[in-house]
Amino acid sequence: MKKSGNEVIIIGAGNVGTHLARQLDQQNYTIRGICSRSIQSARQLAKYYVCESWANPAIIPNDAQYYFICVNDEAIASVAEAMPSTNGLVMHTSGSTPLDVLSRFPNRGVFYPIQTFTKTHETDFSLVPICIEASNKKSLNTLKNLALQFSNNIIEADSIKRKYIHLSAIFASNFTNYMYVIAYDILTKQQLPFSILLPLILESFEKVTLMEPWQAQTGPAVRGDSFIIQEHLKMLSNNPDYQEIYRLLSEQIMKHKK
Amino acid sequence: MKKSGNEVIIIGAGNVGTHLARQLDQQNYTIRGICSRSIQSARQLAKYYVCESWANPAIIPNDAQYYFICVNDEAIASVAEAMPSTNGLVMHTSGSTPLDVLSRFPNRGVFYPIQTFTKTHETDFSLVPICIEASNKKSLNTLKNLALQFSNNIIEADSIKRKYIHLSAIFASNFTNYMYVIAYDILTKQQLPFSILLPLILESFEKVTLMEPWQAQTGPAVRGDSFIIQEHLKMLSNNPDYQEIYRLLSEQIMKHKK
Repeated sequence: MKKSGNEVIIIGAGNVGTHLARQLDQQNYTIRGICSRSIQSARQLAKYYVCESWANPAIIPNDAQYYFICVNDEAIASVAEAMPSTNGLVMHTSGSTPLDVLSRFPNRGVFYPIQTFTKTHETDFSLVPICIEASNKKSLNTLKNLALQFSNNIIEADSIKRKYIHLSAIFASNFTNYMYVIAYDILTKQQLPFSILLPLILESFEKVTLMEPWQAQTGPAVRGDSFIIQEHLKMLSNNPDYQEIYRLLSEQIMKHKK
Repeated sequence: MKKSGNEVIIIGAGNVGTHLARQLDQQNYTIRGICSRSIQSARQLAKYYVCESWANPAIIPNDAQYYFICVNDEAIASVAEAMPSTNGLVMHTSGSTPLDVLSRFPNRGVFYPIQTFTKTHETDFSLVPICIEASNKKSLNTLKNLALQFSNNIIEADSIKRKYIHLSAIFASNFTNYMYVIAYDILTKQQLPFSILLPLILESFEKVTLMEPWQAQTGPAVRGDSFIIQEHLKMLSNNPDYQEIYRLLSEQIMKHKK
């Protein structure tokens, strides 16, 4: 007889799989095993939870209660196809992949945390909104109870709505981070530390919690200060890529300003 | 006889002038008057400090100790030309304007706070790095002492270096804020609140305090997930401007990834 009805199998040992495993282990769940196409990654993560590890999704047990597919969007369909049939709740964690991709499982769902994960930084899940979707009422309830172990901010969203949330998250996080990459590059070339920008970056965050983004917009583009913009474009002439981003974003801010 | 050697005149009643006046008033400085080409703006700000207000820089007194020029970059030169001659320390607050623009004043300097200011949000100046530059040793010392009333993070930087700091600040703050504008637009069209992205935006800030920006980069572009990128470009087809930004930033992240 099984000791608990809370066994979880995690497929994918990247950023998301690593963070989910940690959080589930801290709650009342048993990590039954980790599957990763890189057996080294699977073993490394499995070591922490003293559980099994596999490289091939075809050989994972079919009697766990929860399956989290935490692989790249492009690999979700083939992983789902390779997995054994199961009555467990099979979930993927992708913002942009429809629920349908799991249609061969009677109990299927989506568990999409609106967050950016890196292995080296622990995330406080209690604040993270989680978008959920499921194939039937029973799965939705199970999924909701599961998600509530992580966070009180649960958003029911269908596959279309979730795709737009994911798209907006890319602008708000991945692309803003790339702006930091560029700022870092510019400062490093001048032998200046990136840390001089941190109070500014913090302030930009604080402002967006207090007002609509257009109200918070400052800078030469929204002021229409074309002289400074031309100067900056000249300063970037040795990096046509950064120059193109500067030009495009400045033009759009000027064009759309409210 | 003057009651103090700490009289300040502020030219410009916008975001920067408003914040400097507040901070100087809280320290041991007397706001002697506010000058703004809009006399209404000057009067409104002067009201708080029970001081004079002017619309024309030619008529401001010439015997104050400190003059802060807090006008748009394009207007600094003409304001400096219109002002009376003075032995006071005349400073501008611009990231991108050379010190030379104040060459008619024997004691001149630059006081550039690396921060984004909006009138409706109070700034904690103690954390704000301030870039300073001055025409002579005496002015530099005066300026340094003044800046230390605001912050312990004082950076001596010449006009060239300061321009690069300003350029990097535009990427790290103005352009990231524009990414929030776009995310806000996408979510609003789906009747979803922008607030669901705030934990993600906070995490992006926290990560950049802990690791280099490239180490923090996540998302479909850095993973090379071209299927998702194509999907997102389709979703943005009704907004060619946002589509162009998405395409350009994704291409560059893929091209430059480390």
